[in-house]
Amino acid sequence: MLSPHEVAKLQDKSQGGLYRLLRQCALAVLNCGSELDSTRTVLERYRNFDIQITQKHRGVQLNLINAPSSAFVDGELIQGIREHLFSVVRDLLYVEDEFSVCCDDLEPSAMATNIVFHLLRHADALHPHVKPNLMVCWGGHSINRHEYEYTKKVGYELGLRGLNICTGCGPGAMKGPMKGAAIAHAKQRIPAARYVGISEPGIIAAESPNPIVNELIIMPDIEKRLEAFVRLGHGIVVFPGGVGTAEEILYMLGILLREENGKIPFPFIFTGPEGSEEYFETVDRFIAETLGERARNMYEIIVGDPHGVAVRAKEALKDVTAHRRATGEAFHYNWQLHIPPALQQTFEPTHANMAGLNLSRNQPDYELAAQLRCALSGIVAGNVKEPGIQAIEQFGPFELHGEESVMESLDRLLSSFVDQRRMKINHEDYKPCFRLARPKGEQTGT
Amino acid sequence: MLSPHEVAKLQDKSQGGLYRLLRQCALAVLNCGSELDSTRTVLERYRNFDIQITQKHRGVQLNLINAPSSAFVDGELIQGIREHLFSVVRDLLYVEDEFSVCCDDLEPSAMATNIVFHLLRHADALHPHVKPNLMVCWGGHSINRHEYEYTKKVGYELGLRGLNICTGCGPGAMKGPMKGAAIAHAKQRIPAARYVGISEPGIIAAESPNPIVNELIIMPDIEKRLEAFVRLGHGIVVFPGGVGTAEEILYMLGILLREENGKIPFPFIFTGPEGSEEYFETVDRFIAETLGERARNMYEIIVGDPHGVAVRAKEALKDVTAHRRATGEAFHYNWQLHIPPALQQTFEPTHANMAGLNLSRNQPDYELAAQLRCALSGIVAGNVKEPGIQAIEQFGPFELHGEESVMESLDRLLSSFVDQRRMKINHEDYKPCFRLARPKGEQTGT
Amino acid sequence: MLSPHEVAKLQDKSQGGLYRLLRQCALAVLNCGSELDSTRTVLERYRNFDIQITQKHRGVQLNLINAPSSAFVDGELIQGIREHLFSVVRDLLYVEDEFSVCCDDLEPSAMATNIVFHLLRHADALHPHVKPNLMVCWGGHSINRHEYEYTKKVGYELGLRGLNICTGCGPGAMKGPMKGAAIAHAKQRIPAARYVGISEPGIIAAESPNPIVNELIIMPDIEKRLEAFVRLGHGIVVFPGGVGTAEEILYMLGILLREENGKIPFPFIFTGPEGSEEYFETVDRFIAETLGERARNMYEIIVGDPHGVAVRAKEALKDVTAHRRATGEAFHYNWQLHIPPALQQTFEPTHANMAGLNLSRNQPDYELAAQLRCALSGIVAGNVKEPGIQAIEQFGPFELHGEESVMESLDRLLSSFVDQRRMKINHEDYKPCFRLARPKGEQTGT
Amino acid sequence: MLSPHEVAKLQDKSQGGLYRLLRQCALAVLNCGSELDSTRTVLERYRNFDIQITQKHRGVQLNLINAPSSAFVDGELIQGIREHLFSVVRDLLYVEDEFSVCCDDLEPSAMATNIVFHLLRHADALHPHVKPNLMVCWGGHSINRHEYEYTKKVGYELGLRGLNICTGCGPGAMKGPMKGAAIAHAKQRIPAARYVGISEPGIIAAESPNPIVNELIIMPDIEKRLEAFVRLGHGIVVFPGGVGTAEEILYMLGILLREENGKIPFPFIFTGPEGSEEYFETVDRFIAETLGERARNMYEIIVGDPHGVAVRAKEALKDVTAHRRATGEAFHYNWQLHIPPALQQTFEPTHANMAGLNLSRNQPDYELAAQLRCALSGIVAGNVKEPGIQAIEQFGPFELHGEESVMESLDRLLSSFVDQRRMKINHEDYKPCFRLARPKGEQTGT
Repeated sequence: MLSPHEVAKLQDKSQGGLYRLLRQCALAVLNCGSELDSTRTVLERYRNFDIQITQKHRGVQLNLINAPSSAFVDGELIQGIREHLFSVVRDLLYVEDEFSVCCDDLEPSAMATNIVFHLLRHADALHPHVKPNLMVCWGGHSINRHEYEYTKKVGYELGLRGLNICTGCGPGAMKGPMKGAAIAHAKQRIPAARYVGISEPGIIAAESPNPIVNELIIMPDIEKRLEAFVRLGHGIVVFPGGVGTAEEILYMLGILLREENGKIPFPFIFTGPEGSEEYFETVDRFIAETLGERARNMYEIIVGDPHGVAVRAKEALKDVTAHRRATGEAFHYNWQLHIPPALQQTFEPTHANMAGLNLSRNQPDYELAAQLRCALSGIVAGNVKEPGIQAIEQFGPFELHGEESVMESLDRLLSSFVDQRRMKINHEDYKPCFRLARPKGEQTGT
Repeated sequence: MLSPHEVAKLQDKSQGGLYRLLRQCALAVLNCGSELDSTRTVLERYRNFDIQITQKHRGVQLNLINAPSSAFVDGELIQGIREHLFSVVRDLLYVEDEFSVCCDDLEPSAMATNIVFHLLRHADALHPHVKPNLMVCWGGHSINRHEYEYTKKVGYELGLRGLNICTGCGPGAMKGPMKGAAIAHAKQRIPAARYVGISEPGIIAAESPNPIVNELIIMPDIEKRLEAFVRLGHGIVVFPGGVGTAEEILYMLGILLREENGKIPFPFIFTGPEGSEEYFETVDRFIAETLGERARNMYEIIVGDPHGVAVRAKEALKDVTAHRRATGEAFHYNWQLHIPPALQQTFEPTHANMAGLNLSRNQPDYELAAQLRCALSGIVAGNVKEPGIQAIEQFGPFELHGEESVMESLDRLLSSFVDQRRMKINHEDYKPCFRLARPKGEQTGT
Repeated sequence: MLSPHEVAKLQDKSQGGLYRLLRQCALAVLNCGSELDSTRTVLERYRNFDIQITQKHRGVQLNLINAPSSAFVDGELIQGIREHLFSVVRDLLYVEDEFSVCCDDLEPSAMATNIVFHLLRHADALHPHVKPNLMVCWGGHSINRHEYEYTKKVGYELGLRGLNICTGCGPGAMKGPMKGAAIAHAKQRIPAARYVGISEPGIIAAESPNPIVNELIIMPDIEKRLEAFVRLGHGIVVFPGGVGTAEEILYMLGILLREENGKIPFPFIFTGPEGSEEYFETVDRFIAETLGERARNMYEIIVGDPHGVAVRAKEALKDVTAHRRATGEAFHYNWQLHIPPALQQTFEPTHANMAGLNLSRNQPDYELAAQLRCALSGIVAGNVKEPGIQAIEQFGPFELHGEESVMESLDRLLSSFVDQRRMKINHEDYKPCFRLARPKGEQTGT
Repeated sequence: MLSPHEVAKLQDKSQGGLYRLLRQCALAVLNCGSELDSTRTVLERYRNFDIQITQKHRGVQLNLINAPSSAFVDGELIQGIREHLFSVVRDLLYVEDEFSVCCDDLEPSAMATNIVFHLLRHADALHPHVKPNLMVCWGGHSINRHEYEYTKKVGYELGLRGLNICTGCGPGAMKGPMKGAAIAHAKQRIPAARYVGISEPGIIAAESPNPIVNELIIMPDIEKRLEAFVRLGHGIVVFPGGVGTAEEILYMLGILLREENGKIPFPFIFTGPEGSEEYFETVDRFIAETLGERARNMYEIIVGDPHGVAVRAKEALKDVTAHRRATGEAFHYNWQLHIPPALQQTFEPTHANMAGLNLSRNQPDYELAAQLRCALSGIVAGNVKEPGIQAIEQFGPFELHGEESVMESLDRLLSSFVDQRRMKINHEDYKPCFRLARPKGEQTGT
């Protein structure tokens, strides 16, 4: 049920129009099940894909041309994918309409939080009066078979306990927990089980939502997506992943370490099968070396015990429930959690921005966590992303300011990921793309 | 599920805040079943009524102080009224948020139409793919017992045929059809029967929504309320009423007489019990004398035959369905219908505005219909509304421009209403509060 | 979904077949809304009515020939009536199949109770875990307009409090409470409100179920129908009626006066509008004179106060709930209530059976109540029923054994009903059709 | 909601009582997920298991003592298992009550068919007006991992096409298709997907129903279970299995080869992954050698093509739908299919019964199919079942009457199954436990 005006916006191929975004997201949704994990490859392979919007009885009819055949069964679109297309249209139009206005009298941080709230409410993702039961699962999308089976088992145990799953869409650790939970929910006859996928236009093509996702939400950017995870979800389980997963962990630590959040219980569990301990050992050591022991108290690590993870999560959610009751906080949206503006803003990894980071322990741990998250983001860009590699070739390694020891920790973290084959890079090819900038005085002295 | 920001708006007692509107509408909703039909009386009687908004788990809790006791059963709010309060909050906040922005790049007429659409969609009042079945019922809220029973019978026959009812809320012809239809819907086991009430803040206190209304929608002003009736409803049944009902009839004729709407079928049936023929004879004669025969073809009059009305409505809705199918129009919103801007704007009955009307037949019939609607509105004000009576006392009768014969028709219409006791005025007290202005030239000549 | 075998049974016009019963019940169901209250008249008027059962895809298709037109709207059967036809088929087949076998190893009284249970369960009329909320309404089907409006108001007040209604089907006091409750349930948005109608083949033609009834149950005979009322219902409201209503009151007293039932709370309220007090005064006096004060404590009388009745019922149901909880009794079926076998057996009013009654106070009150119920039944037959009148003409008045004073009370009760126009008999025509039999000894002495 | 009388039956530990059956079935249901596939082992391991029936508010409370812990999550029974317990109680009581009486005036074959119908209807397993979509899956419960994954893929492809799954409960080919379909149904958002499990008391302990089964039905014996499959299901997919699966195939051929069934389309597809062709080759050759080419036309074999199986099934169901429409047959129960009495009766494999079989081709193919099914049943007993082995030791090999070549085919079939490790027997241990009986005349001649 769209107005002619809204249809026109979707058809608008000009700069301000929504057509380009719509086509990109629709393609991602249709391309589910694909193994391609690069946006560029996807867009190239389906260069001829087109989506034509026509009106029929003032409803919208989408004509899909040259769409991936995996989205169809005997010529009919899979119903789950049909619903995802609907979610795409819903969210793109809503953002377009409401974004700038829902709360234009608020300061930026509150405004971001309110926009996330409005988007989730509009998507019917806020269910009031339902006891906290939504576990966010983070982790890599290209984990190995053994790890994948483990994520299914964890999902199964969570599902047996009536918990719902929220992930970032895509394969691997994003999909396994949902599949496991789906079987468990069937056994427990939970009819309205939730498989929430939160994506954003920049990442959706690389991480196509699985059709099991029965609530797809497209947030306007990566930071709002992260904020949606932590305000909508009631706890987080982290599976092994790559640098992206490490970044998400640092994002979360940047929040949990804030004093304002000190008394807010937030289940934060790292887990993987036996054989994958190394990933979390690496991350744990890095956190210990840089942020210190206080940060290590924010999470717990459970190895090879899906049942234990689920029992722990269930218990921890009881604390969450009790705390929300006690403080009059909603069950459906975590307004209380303080997210520092630094984590709500996008970080662009240029040489200048990288040089502007402060990577020393002479600052509060939560600030260092936020700085490290940015550094990690930049280093990955410099190592494996096209524009980053070119920038390094042109201007030399990033100069970072801070402590030698923090640099060394960073270096160890990354080379360990390379060893564990968690980055698309060979052992021999790995070279740190950063170095400690000498203090100005020293430089002159040389 | 409101954001703290939205709660603050509802609590805001300042000029721009929503508190005042909220209190007024809430009181109206709570005061259902009352016989008071004057906004002022209602507000005075419940001078001490207050509504306090508090938050509980980020939901809203409304504390009602000195509320009308008829809204409660053994100390508990009637569920239907509770839902009406929810509708009030929903619509007031939505108008506040979206009004100016949903379509600020459109011209005023399209913008009005789009605002009505957005409000109805937000209120979940648009049900796509459902065959046209919503009959709007207009008529007086202070009709006699015999007429009231008749409206119930018509509602019953409509309901037996699966039709839904939409009225303007309030007692009399607004309530009877719903009660009748409710019994019929129960017999036909129609679980999702609709009893739509469309009101606006200015009128809601005088015409409290009946709790049978299961979809209450508060439009921002009277013109959008009228537009909502004709775009959401699929046909109209008019019962006897007073001058207000006559105004609504002229509004509708102002639309149906437009050439653009010539081919759009729109069931428009006037009906009343035996003994009430006079009302429609009076109106019909007035239309014949002023707008002519073409206008008389736009409606049909059925006397004392509830079964016949329902059969006719059901048949006519088949034409509506066929036409919408043929033209690709939505079943849920009548975008095609052209509503001239003159009918979308408010008319303020001052001496100047009245003098500016053109009441001659030297113009298209649809324009005369719109002018007559305004004249009627002004004359009623001059006869029975406090500010109008004062204005007449101060400045003399309204001077109207146009034809003698049109004036005479107007005069006959009104005195006949007085005779039929359809206006709150005695036969002896009735004096026309208007006169034909002499043409300029003649005046000078004297 | 019937088996071919079941279809054959329904089509079987022989003595043991179900066709005759099916036709009779179906006609009753289709004849709703009729004013005829005599089975014979109904059957005669629709002499040509036929119901043909054919199979279509192994479902049953009922072809109705010469059916009452009031059952149709524009040629389509009203959905409520369609469901009633389904109930008829369901219950007739079930009784046929299961009756003799469900519990053939039980003694007769327990067997009757179990049959009633099985029938209600099969009809989905037992809703476990729902707090007691089903009020049975008894009273006359030919009450005056004023009394009818009162039953609607009582139904409305019961409905506002979330109570459901159960009656014996038919017009008057059987229909009014349902109509009132339907409006109240709509206001309270109670989606699964129950309007239970319990009938039996012998009475259904005279008391056609109203289509508002959304659970129609056909019990195999009058005694099981009465037992269904008191085991399924949680309380009883009695409106003014005729002798039939008085019989029902005596049936209920015959149960409540049993010692075994002494501690089982059972709301039993007599109520009527102002102006109808006389009915209950008459009944109350009769009970006082015959059964004494203990019996008068079993009920309460409320005049002209619908609100009061509902508040009282609601309160009393709390006691019922508490008692069932305390004693582990089901909410959905009152197994505990002891119904003496005398009330489970049919009474045939022959001269011999009448002479066998003991109408003296030299027996427990509950036994006298049962005896009086039978006497009343016989006297009515002798006064107004064809076979009874003939029997009196042939054999003279019934000879009754017992006390003079009880006879006098009976006589006063009946002549008062005649005065109040509660019996189809004129004041002048009323003659007692019974007399006190002299003791044997005395007779010889003459 | 049980009557006290029904509760007493369930508690009755005497011979005629239901306690023993209830305990056995309940244990099976609780033991799901176990790898034990022998009834005896299960019963022994849970020797101390007890089920106590108590009443609480006239509902039944089951106290489980020493129940398998796998049925619980954190001390709470898995909901799916709870529903299975309910099904057990429902079906045991219903059989007890209705069995002998539902149709005691019918001849035995029709009576069996009607009992199956009554049981399925009572279990709400008959859904009228739903187009044929229920695929029965047969096959072994101890297939290898590769075959198991294949059954999941076939289930997934069936599920994507909206088809439902019915199996005999238990692991392997009984569980895989349901798991696959569950994921597909989730993607297609099919809310009321059916996973029907049909068991019987004799087999349920060895083949515990998987909790995904959302409609568990306990038929009273093995023959009614088989009849339920073919009358409720709309088509059959056979996966690799053992001798049991071969028996089921012969049962089905015994039906399909009947002339009366010649025009009734019945999808019958044998399928397995690449690498498992041998099973169906063996079976196919056996059928060719014994029953001939006509029998081979009754099924089709598809290897390594889950997508192809589903497309074929979907197509074939269209023929089923068309045929049922054309012949007025129900969608929900296949009354038309003629099942010869020989297949409705139990076969006891004694030496006498075995000797009574006629294993020659000098009879109609459908009769030979039925005879072979019995022979197969007996031979398996003689080879691997305790009582059978003892009988062979005591009385020597079974003497069978018929043709040499049929004996040879039987022998080849069984030794091939042994080679393929489809029977619990070693290659060296396999010895035919039967021989061709010499014709009487010859014997005398020796």
